[in-house]
Amino acid sequence: MSGNTLGTLFTVTSFGESHGPAIGCVVDGCPPGLALTAADIQIELDRRKPGTSRHVTQRREPDEVEILSGVFEGFTTGTPIGLLIRNQDQRSKDYGNIAETFRPGHADYSYWQKYGIRDPRGGGRSSARETAVRVAAGAIAKKWLRERYGVLIRACMSALGPIDIPFVCWDEVDRNPFFAPNADIVPQLETYMDELRKSGDSIGARIDVVASGVPVGWGEPVYGRIDADIAYAMMGINAVKGVEIGAGFASVAQRGTEHGDEITPQGFLSNNAGGVLGGISTGQDIIASIAIKPTSSLRLDRRSIDRQGAPVIVNTHGRHDPCVGIRAAPIAESMLALVLIDHALRHRAQCADVLTTTPRIAALAPDGQQRLPSPR
Amino acid sequence: MSGNTLGTLFTVTSFGESHGPAIGCVVDGCPPGLALTAADIQIELDRRKPGTSRHVTQRREPDEVEILSGVFEGFTTGTPIGLLIRNQDQRSKDYGNIAETFRPGHADYSYWQKYGIRDPRGGGRSSARETAVRVAAGAIAKKWLRERYGVLIRACMSALGPIDIPFVCWDEVDRNPFFAPNADIVPQLETYMDELRKSGDSIGARIDVVASGVPVGWGEPVYGRIDADIAYAMMGINAVKGVEIGAGFASVAQRGTEHGDEITPQGFLSNNAGGVLGGISTGQDIIASIAIKPTSSLRLDRRSIDRQGAPVIVNTHGRHDPCVGIRAAPIAESMLALVLIDHALRHRAQCADVLTTTPRIAALAPDGQQRLPSPR
Amino acid sequence: MSGNTLGTLFTVTSFGESHGPAIGCVVDGCPPGLALTAADIQIELDRRKPGTSRHVTQRREPDEVEILSGVFEGFTTGTPIGLLIRNQDQRSKDYGNIAETFRPGHADYSYWQKYGIRDPRGGGRSSARETAVRVAAGAIAKKWLRERYGVLIRACMSALGPIDIPFVCWDEVDRNPFFAPNADIVPQLETYMDELRKSGDSIGARIDVVASGVPVGWGEPVYGRIDADIAYAMMGINAVKGVEIGAGFASVAQRGTEHGDEITPQGFLSNNAGGVLGGISTGQDIIASIAIKPTSSLRLDRRSIDRQGAPVIVNTHGRHDPCVGIRAAPIAESMLALVLIDHALRHRAQCADVLTTTPRIAALAPDGQQRLPSPR
Amino acid sequence: MSGNTLGTLFTVTSFGESHGPAIGCVVDGCPPGLALTAADIQIELDRRKPGTSRHVTQRREPDEVEILSGVFEGFTTGTPIGLLIRNQDQRSKDYGNIAETFRPGHADYSYWQKYGIRDPRGGGRSSARETAVRVAAGAIAKKWLRERYGVLIRACMSALGPIDIPFVCWDEVDRNPFFAPNADIVPQLETYMDELRKSGDSIGARIDVVASGVPVGWGEPVYGRIDADIAYAMMGINAVKGVEIGAGFASVAQRGTEHGDEITPQGFLSNNAGGVLGGISTGQDIIASIAIKPTSSLRLDRRSIDRQGAPVIVNTHGRHDPCVGIRAAPIAESMLALVLIDHALRHRAQCADVLTTTPRIAALAPDGQQRLPSPR
Repeated sequence: MSGNTLGTLFTVTSFGESHGPAIGCVVDGCPPGLALTAADIQIELDRRKPGTSRHVTQRREPDEVEILSGVFEGFTTGTPIGLLIRNQDQRSKDYGNIAETFRPGHADYSYWQKYGIRDPRGGGRSSARETAVRVAAGAIAKKWLRERYGVLIRACMSALGPIDIPFVCWDEVDRNPFFAPNADIVPQLETYMDELRKSGDSIGARIDVVASGVPVGWGEPVYGRIDADIAYAMMGINAVKGVEIGAGFASVAQRGTEHGDEITPQGFLSNNAGGVLGGISTGQDIIASIAIKPTSSLRLDRRSIDRQGAPVIVNTHGRHDPCVGIRAAPIAESMLALVLIDHALRHRAQCADVLTTTPRIAALAPDGQQRLPSPR
Repeated sequence: MSGNTLGTLFTVTSFGESHGPAIGCVVDGCPPGLALTAADIQIELDRRKPGTSRHVTQRREPDEVEILSGVFEGFTTGTPIGLLIRNQDQRSKDYGNIAETFRPGHADYSYWQKYGIRDPRGGGRSSARETAVRVAAGAIAKKWLRERYGVLIRACMSALGPIDIPFVCWDEVDRNPFFAPNADIVPQLETYMDELRKSGDSIGARIDVVASGVPVGWGEPVYGRIDADIAYAMMGINAVKGVEIGAGFASVAQRGTEHGDEITPQGFLSNNAGGVLGGISTGQDIIASIAIKPTSSLRLDRRSIDRQGAPVIVNTHGRHDPCVGIRAAPIAESMLALVLIDHALRHRAQCADVLTTTPRIAALAPDGQQRLPSPR
Repeated sequence: MSGNTLGTLFTVTSFGESHGPAIGCVVDGCPPGLALTAADIQIELDRRKPGTSRHVTQRREPDEVEILSGVFEGFTTGTPIGLLIRNQDQRSKDYGNIAETFRPGHADYSYWQKYGIRDPRGGGRSSARETAVRVAAGAIAKKWLRERYGVLIRACMSALGPIDIPFVCWDEVDRNPFFAPNADIVPQLETYMDELRKSGDSIGARIDVVASGVPVGWGEPVYGRIDADIAYAMMGINAVKGVEIGAGFASVAQRGTEHGDEITPQGFLSNNAGGVLGGISTGQDIIASIAIKPTSSLRLDRRSIDRQGAPVIVNTHGRHDPCVGIRAAPIAESMLALVLIDHALRHRAQCADVLTTTPRIAALAPDGQQRLPSPR
Repeated sequence: MSGNTLGTLFTVTSFGESHGPAIGCVVDGCPPGLALTAADIQIELDRRKPGTSRHVTQRREPDEVEILSGVFEGFTTGTPIGLLIRNQDQRSKDYGNIAETFRPGHADYSYWQKYGIRDPRGGGRSSARETAVRVAAGAIAKKWLRERYGVLIRACMSALGPIDIPFVCWDEVDRNPFFAPNADIVPQLETYMDELRKSGDSIGARIDVVASGVPVGWGEPVYGRIDADIAYAMMGINAVKGVEIGAGFASVAQRGTEHGDEITPQGFLSNNAGGVLGGISTGQDIIASIAIKPTSSLRLDRRSIDRQGAPVIVNTHGRHDPCVGIRAAPIAESMLALVLIDHALRHRAQCADVLTTTPRIAALAPDGQQRLPSPR
């Protein structure tokens, strides 16, 4: 194990480089009896795949997934599910100069010093291309969570660089290339991105991800908290620099009377907790928010050094996302799904026999008003 | 395993409730030959222990640690180190009413629904008292990292509620009860806390934690990133709602030309990355920042329900920290130390034979100016 | 993690040296709601403890266990159970010369070369004293398995050195100091041991361990087989050199028509499989058998070397078991229980929703005739 | 994780069914810088592959391996190595009746009751076909162990059913289809197998596996012993029912003076320990021996039941090994290699800094006489 397996009971073991023959993974621990076809996975991969608008990389990858095992006559068998995505559009020559220099903001230098060798083609293992694997595995998790427990997982962009995106409704998210939950703001985003692209620069973004319908009781004290695992999963997405649960950093300036979500027989009155107390789900929406840094691949000149330590000027041509956050919503959904299914299984392992007569506290009314944390 | 073990190779397995006979842990995987006495651990425990100022809980716990195993004639033997801290000041009667109701913002409800049983005395397992164990284990990690690799780990408060605390110098941190790196602001903090305490309310805080001298190359792609493990460890601290690495959420509004840390033969020119690229340390300071929510234990009335679902008013008397963030700096240091020692061992397991001739890039000049991320 | 944690979901993390202040463990992942007192554990510890007959070590250890956490008002809470056993009868002076030499058959040399330091008092960490911890943890597992699933776990001695012990009945096992399932053979065993003890030599033994009532379906392909985990657990007992499941080594000379257990609507017709097919339990008795080597501590002269590599003659005085196998039955039961509870939890995590209408095949009639594998 | 990952630091995560599209695995944690090509793996796969003599299954599988990732310009990069073997010779129609009945000695019934669904084609996941994956992964481990530490791992058949095979020399092993270390006995084995095949029955076998050149110090107390991990790995091979280390079950009847390997400045005088003391390697040959049951697939009539519980007579046509032990030597070597590389990495993680001046005790003279444990 060298960091390429996610999860404890429902595990994803990933492999593959950006410009190698293929990427893929082994999904182990999936409950048997889940109806599953390649199409179920493909639909999620298509949401993330490159080339779907002018605002993302123009690399042409159909990202076609093949199920190699673990499914028999349309149902999972409980044995490992091998998933394979062949790389199609490798232009390794685009990356010739990467081999000798370290691009600022990239993992070139840290990989090189760690391993003494690295596959520089397209960033090799550190490329965001690997996130296709997460989406493929996450599709299985999402399907099981929805069918078995009614859990619904959705993500949207809440900020593109300096532009805050007020939440309007989930339905809008898949209708624009930004996963923005707000149709009115889309023209502004498009203009911003067009100008950015011309400038050769890149920009960060913020993504919110929400799981609704999570039963109370998933998670574990004291290190294996469900929010700790969410933080781990989210920070493990390429380019993520920050993770919040519920009120997040806004809770620094909150008073206890404001932050602590009061309870009535009708339900919780707020959700500053983001659906987690003591590392265990409360039944409210689980809400996380992540900060994604601007893409490090720029065609503008940047100072760096080469492998001998001599100064160089680097700039990166080829095909890149000027804002990697744009395609991040499906990835964030997948990572949340993978954490949740893992804790679903862990919970029923230990607590399958637990039965309390205490009524389940209702989650907030699904009117959207308090669905996403307002304080930023 | 039900969430109470931290780490992969250097592990801490924790046990104990706030008002049970004892708390403690087993530290496994410690390298042999480290000079270690109970005093080495006690010095860190004393930094976290309650009752050291009027701004924290008045519970009287000496937090005396006993080493039960794994040390022979003053040196670690490589076998598990059992650590035991007896609880001294249990006033279980203070918590009688907790057993029947669910305090807002606390883990009462989620524990109850998960396990069908809970130890309500002082919050039981969900009490921040458990963090003493982390500090004890972290003391071992810190000592080894410092002696073996020269790694220095320090934390400070950077905001107390609405009051930002500008960083001045590390030396100040242990001279005031707030772990504030700034002597001038301490009177303001004291006034704020005195008024808060009178009001019966509580407040959040922000803690920055920095590791200096970390070698390049620690960490793993793609899920087991060192920043992902830091996020996991930090979000696993009681009351933490957000984690940032380097520029954190400020990177949302940054452009790539601003965020990507340029490199010269003299060193990195900035540290927006927070010392991590591609999940692997760069040799720069590793910088994390965490948001700590306000204490949920308030003597003010709050709405809730009891175990039968009927509405109740709860308020919590007894001894609490009005700002749990005040004692959090040693905990954050310990969690970072535990992540780092784990990755130190993981790295040399896989890469002990790696040798590159590329010069190590210098970290930023230790003038403090850019040591902590400025954009908030 | 450095080898001191057993299990995946129900875990035992052990610490302690033979002559340190204490031994103990953290049991994590125990289902909540199990009635548990120290007496439940003590009863099993008393079966293993030293000094109960003249045939075992005369070290006087009451092996009194203290429950430090995880139990509230007589029931497990689902949080980690800390168990502590103080060492009472340390005579470290007996072991002075061990520090400088390597006793044949002991772990002295391998520990020394691995760690560069070792606690030589009574064998330190490598002492069989650590097995008390396993019995304590195993007592919890046994109780849960019995109460929740009706699983019964029993072990007996089937050979003492050259003396085969034919199985008669389980009731006899706890009536003699050898855990022999056969009253008639006890005098022969006593005579043998008395002569052996006088000679200063030691002897091996064979232990059979059986779990009855295990549901069909526990275990996992392809590496995490339940028989693989049993082999791991058993070989992890001090002095064990061999493990068999079902027919074991006798299956080498069997034909398929003899070995393969036929099935009828009335049940399996034999149990060469030892209750496991494809790594998954069949519902028949799970049967394992282990070989325990003779104690390495002898008062007879043996050739060895000292830390400088010079030849020495060593002999070990002090208090030892001339046959460590005599006290091994409770340990083997505990290890089997720990494996089974772990797989019980793992199974319901993944397969909680599985329901087939195929009738469960009956286990062999419990007349004892085929309960233990006959071919040796 | 549902049992399909082997190892802690050097891990193999396996997938694939006998008659699905492919089998394969992800090897994670491999040290960077190892020279590796598909040919290095293929050479080991060819030793195991079916159809190489009339004594094994006639299924025609070239077992061609494709390296999908983790290797760049002929060297491992430290990132996960994806290995893929497409299935070629699926005759699923041969297995039609398996779907409705439970073959005696097979995993049909236990899989069915566990998962409620199974892929019956060729045994699906429980087929020995999966062992090709182990050999592929093991080839990487063997190469690294040999090149980095000079460790040599070899296995041979030591008994075919009732025929004991005296050890003569290793050179002979790859010259006959039985992996017999003895040329003289091969005609007898061939005659035996020809008659067995005609009878329609099957037979067990015994395999010895030896690692030479293992450094002292690999392994961990108290559960993670290297011999416990070997037992786990070996018992995890299809059809294995017993595992011995060193003297194994012969140690039951040994006295301490016979069993304990004496030490002189010239080296150990015997190797009853099988190269392991206290769970840690001694520097002597590590010696294990395994019992392999007779193949359960027989064309002779056997009693069983169908999915409704009704009595049926089953017999299995198609292509099977009448003695699965014949092809087991490369598998046993691979499993031992996988355990050893894992412990090599684990050891240097914790003990990289250990340096003792005690001389290493020589292993037994490599004259072969005592290389394999004599007492059976």
